[in-house]
Parts: sequence; C-alpha cells; structure tokens
Amino acid sequence: MKPVDFTATKITGGFWKQRMEMARKKTLGAVYDRFDETGRIDAFRCDWQEGMPNRPHYFWDSDVAKWIEGAAYMLAEKRDRAIEKKIDKIVDNIAKNQWDDGYFNIYYTLFARDRRFTLRDEHELYCAGHLIEAAVAYYRATGKRKMLDCMIRYAEYIDLRFRIKRDTGFSTPGHEELELALVKLYECTGDKRWLDLSEFFIAERGKSVEPMPNWMRASYNQSHLPPVKQRTAEGHSVRACYLYTGMADVARLTGNDELKEACKAIFDDIIYKKMYVSGGVGSSSAGEAFTVPFDLPNLLAYTESCAAIGLAFFALRMQLLETDSKYADTIERIIYNGFLSSISLDGTSFFYENPLEILPYMHTRDASVVNPSIHFPPMQRSKMFGCSCCPPNIVRFIPSIANFMYTVDDSGDVPVLFVHQFAQSKTVLDFGGAQLNVSQRTRFPDSGRVSVNISGSDARVAVRVPFWSDGFKALKGNNASYLFTRSGYAYFYVPDGGCVNIDLGMKISLVAARPESRFDCGKFAVMRGPVLYCMEGIDNPEPLRDIRLKPGSFRYSPTGPIDGVPSITAKAFRTASADFADGSLYRQTSAPLPLVKTSATLIPYYAFANRGVCEMQVWNFVKEK
Amino acid sequence: MKPVDFTATKITGGFWKQRMEMARKKTLGAVYDRFDETGRIDAFRCDWQEGMPNRPHYFWDSDVAKWIEGAAYMLAEKRDRAIEKKIDKIVDNIAKNQWDDGYFNIYYTLFARDRRFTLRDEHELYCAGHLIEAAVAYYRATGKRKMLDCMIRYAEYIDLRFRIKRDTGFSTPGHEELELALVKLYECTGDKRWLDLSEFFIAERGKSVEPMPNWMRASYNQSHLPPVKQRTAEGHSVRACYLYTGMADVARLTGNDELKEACKAIFDDIIYKKMYVSGGVGSSSAGEAFTVPFDLPNLLAYTESCAAIGLAFFALRMQLLETDSKYADTIERIIYNGFLSSISLDGTSFFYENPLEILPYMHTRDASVVNPSIHFPPMQRSKMFGCSCCPPNIVRFIPSIANFMYTVDDSGDVPVLFVHQFAQSKTVLDFGGAQLNVSQRTRFPDSGRVSVNISGSDARVAVRVPFWSDGFKALKGNNASYLFTRSGYAYFYVPDGGCVNIDLGMKISLVAARPESRFDCGKFAVMRGPVLYCMEGIDNPEPLRDIRLKPGSFRYSPTGPIDGVPSITAKAFRTASADFADGSLYRQTSAPLPLVKTSATLIPYYAFANRGVCEMQVWNFVKEK
Repeated sequence: MKPVDFTATKITGGFWKQRMEMARKKTLGAVYDRFDETGRIDAFRCDWQEGMPNRPHYFWDSDVAKWIEGAAYMLAEKRDRAIEKKIDKIVDNIAKNQWDDGYFNIYYTLFARDRRFTLRDEHELYCAGHLIEAAVAYYRATGKRKMLDCMIRYAEYIDLRFRIKRDTGFSTPGHEELELALVKLYECTGDKRWLDLSEFFIAERGKSVEPMPNWMRASYNQSHLPPVKQRTAEGHSVRACYLYTGMADVARLTGNDELKEACKAIFDDIIYKKMYVSGGVGSSSAGEAFTVPFDLPNLLAYTESCAAIGLAFFALRMQLLETDSKYADTIERIIYNGFLSSISLDGTSFFYENPLEILPYMHTRDASVVNPSIHFPPMQRSKMFGCSCCPPNIVRFIPSIANFMYTVDDSGDVPVLFVHQFAQSKTVLDFGGAQLNVSQRTRFPDSGRVSVNISGSDARVAVRVPFWSDGFKALKGNNASYLFTRSGYAYFYVPDGGCVNIDLGMKISLVAARPESRFDCGKFAVMRGPVLYCMEGIDNPEPLRDIRLKPGSFRYSPTGPIDGVPSITAKAFRTASADFADGSLYRQTSAPLPLVKTSATLIPYYAFANRGVCEMQVWNFVKEK
Repeated sequence: MKPVDFTATKITGGFWKQRMEMARKKTLGAVYDRFDETGRIDAFRCDWQEGMPNRPHYFWDSDVAKWIEGAAYMLAEKRDRAIEKKIDKIVDNIAKNQWDDGYFNIYYTLFARDRRFTLRDEHELYCAGHLIEAAVAYYRATGKRKMLDCMIRYAEYIDLRFRIKRDTGFSTPGHEELELALVKLYECTGDKRWLDLSEFFIAERGKSVEPMPNWMRASYNQSHLPPVKQRTAEGHSVRACYLYTGMADVARLTGNDELKEACKAIFDDIIYKKMYVSGGVGSSSAGEAFTVPFDLPNLLAYTESCAAIGLAFFALRMQLLETDSKYADTIERIIYNGFLSSISLDGTSFFYENPLEILPYMHTRDASVVNPSIHFPPMQRSKMFGCSCCPPNIVRFIPSIANFMYTVDDSGDVPVLFVHQFAQSKTVLDFGGAQLNVSQRTRFPDSGRVSVNISGSDARVAVRVPFWSDGFKALKGNNASYLFTRSGYAYFYVPDGGCVNIDLGMKISLVAARPESRFDCGKFAVMRGPVLYCMEGIDNPEPLRDIRLKPGSFRYSPTGPIDGVPSITAKAFRTASADFADGSLYRQTSAPLPLVKTSATLIPYYAFANRGVCEMQVWNFVKEK
C-alpha cells in the first residue's frame, strides 16, 4: 500500500477548506506571535543570559520546529515570502549555533553544555526529531536545503554517539518522536542510514533499565518491554503514539512482521479498550497517560490534543500496513471530534486537554482550601501554554489533512485506489505508473453523499464504508460497477471518466459504550455521521445530567445557535421542579418520579466552549416514552 | 425541651443491644490495644525522648481521651475493675504531668514548652476539650474526681490566658471542640464560668483575622464570620459540626435567639444541600471539608466518620432547641448508615472515609506513574490510622446511642414525652417532677412495629413519624388516643399503664435526589425504613453501573449473603454481552439496546466492605419495564 501525500491533493471547498484557510490566515500567525512574545523565536539566537525574560525551556526547539513544519505545509500549497523570511531567519540561527560536531539544542547549548545526551527525560532527541521533520517539510515545500543539511549533520552526530560510539548517558529517547522523524528523513533523502537508525532506536528500547525520574515507571515512556513484544498501549499517550507511529513506519519499510504484529495489537488495544468516543486518548492527567482498559471518565478526561494527533499518525501508518477500515474510521473519529475540539472556531486559541464533560462548579467546590485536590481540564481554550506543544501540532496537522484521504495498492493484478476520507477536492496521483485524476464532489460531513470521479485510466476504487454508515448505497449518476465489500471497503470498477456516486448512509445515531466503560453506563452519545454532538448549558437547562433525550425525536439542521455550525434538536424530559419544591434533597418514592417535557439542542463536540463557561456533556440519558 | 441522658435507658435487645455488646467486648479493647501498641497510652507519661519509637503527635491526647469517654459510658452501665485500672493509670499520669499552672498537653510538654497557646492549628484546645469530656464522663460513671479536678484546673488556666489575660498567640480554637466540652463541664459542675467561657470562644470567633497555614482559607475552620452571622456549613466538616454543636448548646442555655437562628440556617444548609443520602457530610478530601451546595460525588465522597458523629451531635442539640422531626430524622439517617458503616461487622476495624461508591479499578488506573493524582477513599476498613480520631469516636458513640431516643417537653400545661428513636428498651425518666417508666417493644429496624408502654402517670407521648414512613397507623393493642400531628410528631394521650402500639409504615422505597445533585441524576437509592441499601460486586455482576433494577420487584429478607444481616433482592436488567461480542467499544444504534434479565441482591450500606474488595454502589439505575 502506498501513501498519497497531501501535496497531491487540493481541497477545493467545504469543511476542511474553511479550516485550512483559517489555519493559514489566523492560526499560523497567532501561534508565531505567541511564540515570539514568549521568547521562543529569539531563543534560537542562543544568546539568552540570566536576568533576561523568557528563560528558554528544554522543549522550545520542538515548539518552533512544529510551527515551521506547519508553515511549510502551507507553503507547499502556496509560497509566501513573509513566512519564508521568518523561517529563514530561524534557520540562519540554527546554522550559526549548530556545534562543530553537528549538535543543535537551544537549552543544552545555553545551560548544560557538558550534559549533552545524559538526561533521558529532557526531550533532547524529541527536539531533534521535530527539527528534522521541519527541515524535511521546508525542503520539500521550497527546495531550500539549509535546514535539511543542518539536520542531516545533527542526525549523523546522533548516529555517531548513540549507535556507533554508544557513549551516551542513555540509549533511547525518553520522549519518542525521533523514530518517526528519521523515517521521514530517509524517505526524503533516500539515505538508508536514517531508517537503520530509527530501527536501531526501536530495537534498543526496553532492552535495559534506563535512568528515569523516580515518579515514573518504565511503562511511562514505553520502556517496560522491547517494542516488538509490546501488546498494549501504556504510559504517556503522546510519547506512546509517536513511538507506535515510528514502529509502524519501520515495520512497513523493513518488512518486520513481528513489529507489525505488535503495532496491530497495540492499535486494537487502543481503539477497543482505551479510546473515548471522541477519538481522544490518554485518560489520566497523572502522567498524561494511557491507563487501564475501559477507564474513560468523561469529567476527568485528559485526552491531550497532541495524543489525538499522534493516534491519527499511528492510524495513518497502519492504513499502509494493512487494509482494514478501522484505521480510517479512527482517523475520521479523531479529525472531526477529539482533534478538532482542540482549536477554537476563530482559530486562535487551543485546548491542551479535551474533556467530554464539564461541570463548572467542580472547579470551585473546594472553597475552604487554597489548592483543590483534583485536576479538572480547563473549561476554555487558551492562546498559549507554558508547555505549548499542542498549538503548533495543530498548525501542522490541518494543512496536511489530505494525507489521510487516499492510498494506492498496486501490489495486485490491478491497482486499487482507496478512498479513506471524504472532502471536496481534486487529486493527481500515480496509479500503477499512470497518472490518475481523482475528484471528490461532496458536502461532507454536512451530507453523506459523495461522488468520486476519476479520469486518466480505468480503476478499481475501494470506498470506505464508515463505521456509522446506515444504508450505504449507489445514487443516480453512479456509473461504476460494484464488485464486493471487504475489510470495510466497497470495491467498484470505474471506467475512465466514470464516477462512484454514493450515499454513505449518514443518519443521526445513538452510541452505546460497552458496559465496562463505567462512566458511560446507561447513557448515550449522539453522532451524525462522523460528527459527535454534545449539549452545552448555554443552549439547555442545567443540570444537563437531568435531561433525558427522546430517541427518534432528533432533527438535524445545518445551522443552529452558532453561526456556520450545524445543530441537532430533540424532544426531552427532565425532573419536575415541583417534586423538590419543598427544598428537600431526597425524596422517597415507589417508582421513578414522573418527568416533564423539555427540549434539547446539541452542537458538534468540536464547537464546544466557544461561548463562555457552562456545563457540557457528551453522554446523555435517554427516555423511550 | 429537656434531654434524657442515655444512662436513664437500658437497651434490652435487638439491633443496638447487639452493637453495644460488640463495642464492649471487641471494639473497646481493640482500640485500646492499637493505642497501646502505637505509644499513645505511654505518651501520657510525658517521658518520650528522641530515638524512642512512637513519637507523640499533637492530637494524641484527644485519641485516648475519646477512648476514656467511651469506656466511661460502658462503665456507667456496668462497672469493670480492669478497665478502670487502665483509665486510672492514665489519669495518674495526667495528674503527675500537669503543669503547676494547670496546663496539660503531651506534645507541648515534650516538644514545645515555650510555644504553648501560640499555634492555632495544632489542636491544643481540641485536646483540652476531649480531655474535659472524658473527665466529665468518667466522673459521672464512677464518681472518681481526680481527672475532673485536673481538667477543672486546666479549664481555669485556659480561662485565665484566653479570656482574662488575653495574652495568647491566637484567640479561638483552630479545631473546635472545646466549646461543647465546656458546656458539658458546666452541666456537670453547675459552674457557670464554663458556659461563659464557651460563649466567649463562640463570640470571639471570626472577629479578627487569626494566624493560619497558607493552604487554608478562614472558612476552613469557620473563622470567616462570627458564628452568629454564619448561615452555611463551611470548611473542615468535623471542626464545623463540633462548633455548631457548641453553638446550639450555648444558644439553648443562654437563650441567644440570634445564635439559634444561625444554627437553624446552618442545619438546613447541611441537610437540604450538603448531606449524602447516608447522612455523611464533608464531600471533599481537600480539607476534609464541606464544599458547595449539591456537591455530592459518590466515588469521591470523603464523609469522615467523625463528621457523621459530629452532625448527629449537632442534630441532638437542635432537637432540644426546636421541635421538628428533621432533627431526629437526620440522626436516624446517620446512625443506621453513614455512622454505622464506619465500623466492621466484627467491631475491630474502621473506616475514616465512607464512600458511596467503590470502583476498585480506579485505585490502580494510573499504572505508569508512582503517585496517582486523585485521592479515592480506602476500600477496606483499617485497625488503626496515623490520625486515629475516628475509632475512639465510634467507641464513645455506640454506648451512648440512647441519648438520641427521648426528650421531655415540660414547658406547656402538660408535659410531653417525645419518642425520637426506636429500640427495644426500658427507660426511667423525670416527667414533670414525677417518675415515668417507658418501655419500647420493637424489632426495629427489622420491623416498623413499635409499642411504647408507659407507667407511673398518664402522659402525652409524641412519636416521630419518620421521613420514610408510608402508612403510619395504630395497631391492635393500642390504647392511646391520637390527638394530632405537628412538626413531624404524632401526639397521643396515653393513660397510665397504656400503650402506643403503632406501625411506622416501613416499606422498601426508592430514593430520588434533587437534580442539582448531579452524580445522582437518573439514579435511585434503595432504602427500607431508615436503612440504606447498596449493591456489592461480590453478590452481583460487575460492572454494577450496568445493572438496572426493576421497581416493584424488591423483596426484603431478614437474612441474606451475610450472616445476621438482612438483604433485599430485586429483578434487574443488564446489557446483553452479545451486543459487544465483536470486541467493539462503541456501537451505533437508533434506540437504546435491548437488555437481558438478571437479578440483584442489595445489602445494608452499613455492612459493605466486610467481604473483600469489590465494586459497591448506592445509587442505581432502574428500568420500569
């Protein structure tokens, strides 16, 4: 299975076009400005001194590197002199401050020159990975080699120290990311050293006990077992997903079937036992970590934005390893929900954590003590964080969204085009040596109708039947021949110039969770197609937990209480206030109290917390009668 | 309204007799032995030196004092030479180590001789209060004055320093308790100085900003306002309830109507907004504190055993201030549930916290980090705690349970005997100057049938109509004349030798909480009479949250899975495992999934956690069809 890079696709309208324009016009600049204000850009001059504001932190290289990568993805679509000038200045500083031996890291250069490669948990190789990803992206977008050359020199130095000399204070990254970055460097340069080095880091991991802070266990950074023997998702969820992404890359490019088996088991462990209905992962703020199976508390969900992004990366690689719609289903679940919630509708503020329920009162309940005991996720997005990994990750994710749309399988007699995601777009791709033009016409996810037009040759086209599909069927105008459905994809034969015109079967559905997910028991989420809905207190009577939605009464509208955002309304019931009018807290009864009618309005989960602090919930009670 | 001291009543059989015997035979000795092992008894020798084990803590005086008080209540029923010998030895040490000026405190004598009365949060006056309560109890039980005389001297010294000289480092207790103890000293000695001193401490409180640790706010120890202006329950729940108890005492004995109004408002704030269905209070482990209205999370409930006891004390005083069955209703709710859960069925281990739900997996969810982020209450009782306030509080509570049974109102034309609580018992009390013999025959709470027999004179008898009553009615053998029902009491005229023979109307009921109590929304507790029931995983399929009980199918049995403990069985429903047999975590549906039949067994909440670690829940889903 071969990837189809996002640069082959032009999103021409609709849901993602709108978000890509926002990212270009608002988010890119907003994140740069916050980074500039907080000293992250100037830090690359490596001339910070005690007494100056904005003391550089050891993960700052990575923050800016991710921003460069995101900017590069936008430049790949359309060059921009002003943005390039900003990047070139940073690159000049990198080149100027790179050590003679090839090393580059702001923090260590300034504060810990004699402790290079000795502190495993301080993100040195993580920063290296993001700098490499940025260098590759910037080179591919602009042809400018300066940063790429710097990073090749740095990679050579890492290779020398970690793999050849083995004279470092630890042997594998404390925060994974370099593994997948080296694969990108390999794919960009064709130099197999970088694939080998990535493979080396994965093979070395978990072989020996490495130094670590005393608050973490080895599973925190996935060092409890060699990756090839791992079968479950453990520890810090961003570290984990980045490692798994690198593992799947290496498994694919080296044909390591044992590593592939590990990846498959871990992926299933995540999506069948550890993933919120939003696609968010990492249930606990303690270690920002994966926890135990079916531990999905909504109010306390940590579900870091970067973890959602990391899981999408992992799923993208798995989609290349194996044909199964669960990978694209997971990507779709993430990109419309747990990822998209991380950015405000105006594109300038961000969630680091993405809760599935908000009870504002819980944030102020401990009125008699100064420090409350429980960490609840913030209720509103921020412009910036001290640890600001998420905003630039969002910057690089949105412009490269088309990465997820297609793959081509040319391993069989006839090549097959896989359509994984749906968006109004035009793509030109290599199809078994020929050029194929693919065009999608759709208003997805507002509508489940999708028309996939091809020209350039005949083709087999495999269209994903989404997990939420209820009545996948051909529409008028379809001139493809349905062949069969396998592993979640409907295969069609499409003649040159032909069209698969289908209705994916998008309806409003209730979602039940398996009962082991105890915080969802007796409750239902509401989805329409891939979009998860939620209730907010601004649109509904609080407490939201008292609302019982009436199944079958749901009505979709492309508009609603938020401009440009759809909504679902439903009939509903709630407790009669008269039943507690005497002020009593408890009431003895022989049968459940009769309820009174009300109505409910749901908005997409991705749009929550854009109108001030109020209750929010994803999992709702329903009442049949 | 006059109290009827527990010494006037002999519990002759049934529920409480059994527990009083257990407390005498098991609990008293078990707590003493743990205190002896941990150095708490020897600490009274005040000769501890660096290098010795068991360094005395600043609250140890109070632990042992509460044990002495409990022992004294047992001695009041039946003298015991061996127990008295133990107490006399402690008293000898107190007398020997009391300072010339009257001061006594182990910790300050050993470690902080020059810092007496300077550290407001270190329990000095709290210890004094408990020593005074113990001295009064021991004197009343045995006539031995030695400890009482010591404590009068200590009280005189406190009076001198705090009220007369005012030369102390703080002006009111950081941990309240002394206020109510001084009232007991006043009632025992008749010396009005002690009532005055209690009144002084209450009047001084909140007048000025007192020194406090920087993690607490003034409301933590109820110093945010003068008590007379307080209207809500705030801060550390044990401190709070002890203060409110003292306030109600002083309001009654001084006729301070403003203080009475404060007490009434605070009591209502607790029972209408801040009390669990178990009678537990103090929702948060942060500060062991009252929080905001309707904050009653079950899984995180702190609900300290001492707080339940404190609220019962407060309600007992309110019962003397005002005729309203809500006070006795609250006492009943506590003594059968949130108090009684604090002691194991074998009488030797204890809960400090009393959760309303247990999900064992939550205790080990944070597998990748050493310190989990959230404090969950322990799942099993302990023999001992580092801070061991609860076990001796239980020791003193059980033998004095009859304190809650009766009051006499002789303020009107005819005296009225109020029957607040129900237990097989014989009482001899002063009834408007005459002696009245009162006998209750009942199997309460196994049965709601109660026969109250009086002899010695005719009487008005006011029997509480419990909050759970469904069909309060006279039974055969009743030869009392029903007069009227007022403020939750049914008044009868009973001739000398006559009997109020009634059925209180005990049925199994569902309990709904008002919707603002968000963690109870859509769920129901099960009660039978005053006894709250719960499900445990040992008797029912886990996850318990997946069980939906069928209203109307409940059946009571005086036996069940635990010897000597009743149970309730019910028809129930749960998720069909076939619905998730493919391993999927979520399932799209158009209507709630059909459920399959199962059955459920509930046991009294007081009996949970006696058979190993498993899930437990009080609030259940129900299904009507």
